[in-house]
Amino acid sequence: MAKTSKKQTYRIRGRIWIESNNEAFLGSGRVELLEKVKEYGSISKAAKAMKMSYRQAWELIDSMNSKAKNPLVIKQSGGKNGGGASITEAGEEAISTFKNLREEMFQFLEMKNKNLKV
Amino acid sequence: MAKTSKKQTYRIRGRIWIESNNEAFLGSGRVELLEKVKEYGSISKAAKAMKMSYRQAWELIDSMNSKAKNPLVIKQSGGKNGGGASITEAGEEAISTFKNLREEMFQFLEMKNKNLKV
Repeated sequence: MAKTSKKQTYRIRGRIWIESNNEAFLGSGRVELLEKVKEYGSISKAAKAMKMSYRQAWELIDSMNSKAKNPLVIKQSGGKNGGGASITEAGEEAISTFKNLREEMFQFLEMKNKNLKV
Repeated sequence: MAKTSKKQTYRIRGRIWIESNNEAFLGSGRVELLEKVKEYGSISKAAKAMKMSYRQAWELIDSMNSKAKNPLVIKQSGGKNGGGASITEAGEEAISTFKNLREEMFQFLEMKNKNLKV
């Protein structure tokens, strides 16, 4: 393909995350993990769906729980299925707060992309 | 320090970059490199200031030049100082376009930070 026929498509991209005392608190990956815990009711199933180890998933959840004002995920021990995990009301709020913010940033970028001159 | 006295400070952070055909074109690091080339009139001095090798700096510049409609940096061969480099008008525009976009995103995040509830 001749260089002159090459059409460049420019696009502004962005990423957003929330820190607590300058450390990672909520980002796209962490929020996806929360959503998987909600979906499966289990940290190990959520970890598997995210292709991470249970340990990695738990460390992320522990980090979020310790940084949030109230825990986002609680483990339930015992019961027929040997314990599961669920999202608290604070967890639900964290998911929606982050996803709303991300959506607003995407809208901001979309608007900027329309007027992008490079 | 008792946990109850721990004050959490939450902050939304973000990063922005421009892609060309889904590949990195301009980001904070690349734009800083362009600014150093402008400041020093030399790719090797700019590389040194950025703590990268000449090769790394040149590869970044080559990537930007090949993706931009017009080159952002031109090398000058010969002359008293054995050749230098300078920023073109397109290079100046790329710097200001990116920095303006980044500033607008920071303002957007600032506004969102004021109303952040987590």
